[in-house]
Amino acid sequence: MPERLTGLICGTEPMNNVWSSRSTLQRMLDVEAALARASAAHGVIPHAAVPAIVAACDADQLDAGGLARSAALGGNLAIPLVKQLTARVNERDPNAAKYVHWGATSQDIIDTATVLQLRDALDLIERGLDDTCASLAMLAREHRTTPAIGRTWLQQALPITLGLKFAQWLDALLRHRERLSELRERALVLQFGGAAGTLASLRDEAQAVSASLAGELKLARPTLPWHTQRDRIAEAASFFGMLIGTLGKIARDVSLQMQTEVGELAEPAAAGKGGSSTMPHKRNPVGCAAVLTAATRAPGLVATVFAGMVQEHERALGGWQAEWDALPDLARLAGGALFHIGQIVGGLDVRPERLAANLDATNGLILGEAVMLALGDHIGRLNAHHVVEQASKAAVQSGRSLYDVLAADPAVMDHLGAERLRALLDPANYAGEAHAFVDAVLASYAQHAPRSSS
Amino acid sequence: MPERLTGLICGTEPMNNVWSSRSTLQRMLDVEAALARASAAHGVIPHAAVPAIVAACDADQLDAGGLARSAALGGNLAIPLVKQLTARVNERDPNAAKYVHWGATSQDIIDTATVLQLRDALDLIERGLDDTCASLAMLAREHRTTPAIGRTWLQQALPITLGLKFAQWLDALLRHRERLSELRERALVLQFGGAAGTLASLRDEAQAVSASLAGELKLARPTLPWHTQRDRIAEAASFFGMLIGTLGKIARDVSLQMQTEVGELAEPAAAGKGGSSTMPHKRNPVGCAAVLTAATRAPGLVATVFAGMVQEHERALGGWQAEWDALPDLARLAGGALFHIGQIVGGLDVRPERLAANLDATNGLILGEAVMLALGDHIGRLNAHHVVEQASKAAVQSGRSLYDVLAADPAVMDHLGAERLRALLDPANYAGEAHAFVDAVLASYAQHAPRSSS
Amino acid sequence: MPERLTGLICGTEPMNNVWSSRSTLQRMLDVEAALARASAAHGVIPHAAVPAIVAACDADQLDAGGLARSAALGGNLAIPLVKQLTARVNERDPNAAKYVHWGATSQDIIDTATVLQLRDALDLIERGLDDTCASLAMLAREHRTTPAIGRTWLQQALPITLGLKFAQWLDALLRHRERLSELRERALVLQFGGAAGTLASLRDEAQAVSASLAGELKLARPTLPWHTQRDRIAEAASFFGMLIGTLGKIARDVSLQMQTEVGELAEPAAAGKGGSSTMPHKRNPVGCAAVLTAATRAPGLVATVFAGMVQEHERALGGWQAEWDALPDLARLAGGALFHIGQIVGGLDVRPERLAANLDATNGLILGEAVMLALGDHIGRLNAHHVVEQASKAAVQSGRSLYDVLAADPAVMDHLGAERLRALLDPANYAGEAHAFVDAVLASYAQHAPRSSS
Amino acid sequence: MPERLTGLICGTEPMNNVWSSRSTLQRMLDVEAALARASAAHGVIPHAAVPAIVAACDADQLDAGGLARSAALGGNLAIPLVKQLTARVNERDPNAAKYVHWGATSQDIIDTATVLQLRDALDLIERGLDDTCASLAMLAREHRTTPAIGRTWLQQALPITLGLKFAQWLDALLRHRERLSELRERALVLQFGGAAGTLASLRDEAQAVSASLAGELKLARPTLPWHTQRDRIAEAASFFGMLIGTLGKIARDVSLQMQTEVGELAEPAAAGKGGSSTMPHKRNPVGCAAVLTAATRAPGLVATVFAGMVQEHERALGGWQAEWDALPDLARLAGGALFHIGQIVGGLDVRPERLAANLDATNGLILGEAVMLALGDHIGRLNAHHVVEQASKAAVQSGRSLYDVLAADPAVMDHLGAERLRALLDPANYAGEAHAFVDAVLASYAQHAPRSSS
Repeated sequence: MPERLTGLICGTEPMNNVWSSRSTLQRMLDVEAALARASAAHGVIPHAAVPAIVAACDADQLDAGGLARSAALGGNLAIPLVKQLTARVNERDPNAAKYVHWGATSQDIIDTATVLQLRDALDLIERGLDDTCASLAMLAREHRTTPAIGRTWLQQALPITLGLKFAQWLDALLRHRERLSELRERALVLQFGGAAGTLASLRDEAQAVSASLAGELKLARPTLPWHTQRDRIAEAASFFGMLIGTLGKIARDVSLQMQTEVGELAEPAAAGKGGSSTMPHKRNPVGCAAVLTAATRAPGLVATVFAGMVQEHERALGGWQAEWDALPDLARLAGGALFHIGQIVGGLDVRPERLAANLDATNGLILGEAVMLALGDHIGRLNAHHVVEQASKAAVQSGRSLYDVLAADPAVMDHLGAERLRALLDPANYAGEAHAFVDAVLASYAQHAPRSSS
Repeated sequence: MPERLTGLICGTEPMNNVWSSRSTLQRMLDVEAALARASAAHGVIPHAAVPAIVAACDADQLDAGGLARSAALGGNLAIPLVKQLTARVNERDPNAAKYVHWGATSQDIIDTATVLQLRDALDLIERGLDDTCASLAMLAREHRTTPAIGRTWLQQALPITLGLKFAQWLDALLRHRERLSELRERALVLQFGGAAGTLASLRDEAQAVSASLAGELKLARPTLPWHTQRDRIAEAASFFGMLIGTLGKIARDVSLQMQTEVGELAEPAAAGKGGSSTMPHKRNPVGCAAVLTAATRAPGLVATVFAGMVQEHERALGGWQAEWDALPDLARLAGGALFHIGQIVGGLDVRPERLAANLDATNGLILGEAVMLALGDHIGRLNAHHVVEQASKAAVQSGRSLYDVLAADPAVMDHLGAERLRALLDPANYAGEAHAFVDAVLASYAQHAPRSSS
Repeated sequence: MPERLTGLICGTEPMNNVWSSRSTLQRMLDVEAALARASAAHGVIPHAAVPAIVAACDADQLDAGGLARSAALGGNLAIPLVKQLTARVNERDPNAAKYVHWGATSQDIIDTATVLQLRDALDLIERGLDDTCASLAMLAREHRTTPAIGRTWLQQALPITLGLKFAQWLDALLRHRERLSELRERALVLQFGGAAGTLASLRDEAQAVSASLAGELKLARPTLPWHTQRDRIAEAASFFGMLIGTLGKIARDVSLQMQTEVGELAEPAAAGKGGSSTMPHKRNPVGCAAVLTAATRAPGLVATVFAGMVQEHERALGGWQAEWDALPDLARLAGGALFHIGQIVGGLDVRPERLAANLDATNGLILGEAVMLALGDHIGRLNAHHVVEQASKAAVQSGRSLYDVLAADPAVMDHLGAERLRALLDPANYAGEAHAFVDAVLASYAQHAPRSSS
Repeated sequence: MPERLTGLICGTEPMNNVWSSRSTLQRMLDVEAALARASAAHGVIPHAAVPAIVAACDADQLDAGGLARSAALGGNLAIPLVKQLTARVNERDPNAAKYVHWGATSQDIIDTATVLQLRDALDLIERGLDDTCASLAMLAREHRTTPAIGRTWLQQALPITLGLKFAQWLDALLRHRERLSELRERALVLQFGGAAGTLASLRDEAQAVSASLAGELKLARPTLPWHTQRDRIAEAASFFGMLIGTLGKIARDVSLQMQTEVGELAEPAAAGKGGSSTMPHKRNPVGCAAVLTAATRAPGLVATVFAGMVQEHERALGGWQAEWDALPDLARLAGGALFHIGQIVGGLDVRPERLAANLDATNGLILGEAVMLALGDHIGRLNAHHVVEQASKAAVQSGRSLYDVLAADPAVMDHLGAERLRALLDPANYAGEAHAFVDAVLASYAQHAPRSSS
């Protein structure tokens, strides 16, 4: 039984696996095994001790319940883990048991394991971003010219194209991919400093062991240990939070467009998802709800990691420990939100008839500006503004369409004529630079060919 | 294996049990069973259907993994739970299966189950508060007159008594007990409204079923359903957050007083807790760290619940779902923080020799005000201020004690004499109303005899 | 020129005045004046010193710019304020100048002034709450039976009444009034402890002066000073935050119902507010936007105050100071949000024709449950469920209304007949307990007659 | 009188000026002026209209109070600003008045003005970072080998060097400079999209005007308008928040080291800053308190901006508006915190005698590991561990120094001798890689020569 049923609407199995208890322990053990190898390579511990240590670095051999109880007493997981690991090694090779965890401090193990998990998480996010960007690029291309109403203040404003909306979302996600690259460079580094960050107990071999340890784990080496300098972790938290923010914006839009009264978009249908047998008109935005849940939770979690940055001296009292749940939670939420948006845009149900109907809902009022500009070429902008404003008011009061009102005005017909007036009142003709903007985003997307496309 | 090893330093088994997956499911099933009984009592479903439904309302009979997967698809846990429950009932009594969940909506079940869990959590908190208050009352009484240095800006200021510090902490906790009572009154109520909060499908029996359901669950009835009015949940979150804030303040103080250079207090020693075999001088404030972790995490979680209050129409899209992890996390953190502070104050190691030594650290400067006031009675306050200020500066520059400097001043000795001067420079004589304040808090504590003392 | 043009969309003049720089200074001076009187009453300072001190306690006599500069250096506003005040007193009566601020510490003045401002703020909030509750009670009564669609997941679900929505909002606000009373009791207390919270420098007159000072300011006395126990302030912050959350929920609903495609409600029109000359169809939810802005900002501010609770020893280093902007900001946002919601519900534009049209949007599908229940009385619930489900699907596929599909089914007509079927498909007949719930809230409102109604 | 006296302990005049009301208005007017020029350049408005518009774009000509009142009604500042601006232009040239704000929407003006202010703010931050980094580099170099105690869990652990601490701080700030560069690239871009983000009203000249407008303002052009894609603003908020977190860590350390009982560091003394005439032993960490205030406030403000990212369609309802105070507040806090840390590290008072005394506080216990490692070379690590552990315990129990206890053990003296034992117990000899780490950070600093050093 998963421990937290509550959080399950926004998570994916691969991302949950990255941060599971078992993975957490295994990643810590991976660091211990790599440390044994690196230390032996420089004569710090005997080569003979390595096999027994490495063999015991297997999460399935540990008593996780016991670890949990001892961690509560000792204040972190590494202390009892090293104890259990030593006992396991001792069973195989009592001599090797002396060399477990040599030169490291608890935080070295916990932080480096977290960095390894973070690397896995960022790999998943990158793949999800690539897939979602690909879907959005396809949608933007497909609906490059599909007229849609633009809404400001939740009110109909002017026409746009549906492709422009998709391009906007894509453009933001492309920036997140850029941020992801920068984050990798800075955050995926080894933590190795020993009890006070000086590696004193490793004496002359300190730098060599550190370099080999980084090599074993395929991590970059930082300029120096960073036990209480947490900007790297904060940047990761912030990345997840910003990504979730963008995904939340997409979910907000889709859910608004899915409203019964709007009906322009729908999440892809799936068995057991969002339908209702007794209310067949209802298609619940279940995926959007999950993403919006993530978007409600992420800011508080980012704030937690940021608040934790104020850490004491060479090891923190609370600030560090506060990261232990907040960072994985953010990664899970980001993974889950990305999955849901990926699913939604990968199978989005676009309803052209409702898009068209909504464009028609104001009887042409949303195109008053288009008429005004065209008329302005003939009678001056100020006069044109006056004519259209009056016509719009008349249309609202009489319930007639703006076309009908304007067509009844000889002055207007003189300058524009019926056909031109109809064209001006066609939303497809007043999308401005929408097509050009879509093309620009698609070009930018093409330039940054995603890894997955190769 | 616990799912989240990371969070384990701030939690207790009883509180974790309240919010475990199994409890969450069982509480939902408790609501379903009570609903069956209440509905049958008013003829809404046949009496004959009750036994099979009640018998199937057992979390151990469910496939929790399957629930988790379906919940991710459907957006909440109640939908697949009702499905599985119906299947289980169907195996016993196909006729009864038709009456499962009659008249209720998913949120009725989830919210009421949460309220039941919240009640259990508040019971645990109340007990913890009572125990911690009792320990603090004892400490305040015992150290009512123990001189200690008061510190402002992390600098030594004026003497206080150690008992005053304890009384301050106790006074804040007594207010939290008051808030807890008010919270119970408002928050521990039934949620029952059906699909749109009107109980329409229960027709004429709606109010009667609702009343019986509340009775079955020993919950009060609200004036009306509150599906998207979440101030009750926000108040619970806020209560946990404020309590954690006060506990964090205590942990901050204890950890500062435990510093190697200060050494006035220490957490009680326990095997496996905070000691170091190679560094016997080190007594890590492990309990304080856990509490400070909670205090770093709580504000973000409270903010999450508050942010979630902005809910849409009759059922929310994200705001409600964001509570599902945030509220249990807050309860867990509050329970854990209270446990740790309870342990700390229950066995606090007070080191009078270090308290005294620290009072002596400034060579009497902290008592300049006391001398000034006494001297002022003789030579006027302004003159006295000048004399003491000069003496203090001289003491700092020369490294002599304030006593020695003042005793060398005939003007001072004329008015005060050696014995009086020594008495004025005794911190025990300049604690002001500290004793009275301690007594006032103890009197207030005695008035609110905790439930557990009966 | 107001210093912050940015924040101006969510504020009111009276609330801004409570927290203006001038009021902040004046409230601090009010405390100093009261302290002089109280001290003189017990012979701690000469009676003769009082007039000069009291006369100088006038914010307009201070150099606010100089205060600001010195406060940045000294770390708080009270230090330079006392200095300037002393200089002003000295100009009138050099002897009196010696007795300024006697026995108090900076935090005594700042905290007590904040409590006085908080009292003013809570008075404004209470008045606003009373007015808004009165408007909502009127709306709930007026629209007790007005049919409206209930929406879950942003999808049409079942009918409710518009009055039920208003009653829900009112019910939540009534709980906030209750919380307000409790907050007043706990939070509106004097702060007076001197440099280390012991009032040592006031010697035997400490308690008497404290009691008189509280009396002068019409504040209750706490059991003991609370310099670093900030739960009172946190509770005030939390109150503002919860209130804003409820107001945000109202604004969310109104703005969704104002959407061009929904159009059921509109904010009251006002010159210069939310209209557009060229887009007469547009009525921007300007008030709602201001409230939603407050609701976006409040959780972070509440979290700030909660985070600040972890304060050091007898005077904090950052946690206290973080309250200085966060608490006033929360009060301002609460005042502004309450004002806007008060305006909105006080003049709400209800559009029955759009309410009716939206109830009709699904061609009767939203009433399938009503038909099913009625038909179930004749042919059993399971059969009825099947019939209605099939009919609903047929209606969706064929574009016919549910009435037309069902009326074509002889089995249905046999049991129900055309008239009954029409009645069942009338949303007004399927509002369940909506009327009863409205009545219950109105009864509860009547019981808690607001102060302003007397 | 500044409007908010409360916030004044963490701010600087230059940064406050960037975000003052006057600057906010002027930056908006700068955009309007640039727009007029750009539009005229492409024939969209007559060249003749430009002078009158540009001349009126002067904040001092506006009625700021009136703007504030109208903004509250209309929901943003740009609407009344354009109205007032048009009136001002009209006084000069009625014909030009028609061309004010041509083609732009309110958000274009507000966002672009914010970007201009952000650019100014980042310039200030960059300069502050460069200065602070230079001071830290100097301190790290100077104290590269100054022994200091390393503390974990607020307990003495192992020796480090003071330079290592400074190098750690510097290293984190160097990463922030890197982030600052990346942020500039992404965030300092034009906002220009017109009412629905399509620039439709500019017809064929849209892209040309947009390019010229960006050129006028020396801003980069984004791929497309970003009205409701707020990741750029969120990244800026996050940058400020992370920077403040690092500065808060520095302030926490300095304030802990300034404690009366520790006394290793002190903030530079300044008239009116942190001293006390009656308590000359007290040196309040006033700068640190200001920075810790910023660090308490920043996480909630970052969370606010992140929460605001979930914006509706083409113009947001609350999420955007929530940025208006949160972003400037973050910039102000970052500027203020950086100023204070710059002042502190620029004149830091280092007290070698207290550093040495604290290293001696445990009578040598902190160097048990050093002895153990050396002894282990002779008698095996396990035996050595046993010997030192026993000696440490004996030292604690007897109150003797570790040297005395070990020197009394012939086995130890045989292998090490008195001189070697003394050397091993000298903290300066057990700083591990501290020097190397300092050198590495200084090398990295030298590589990234700050702009200001040229």
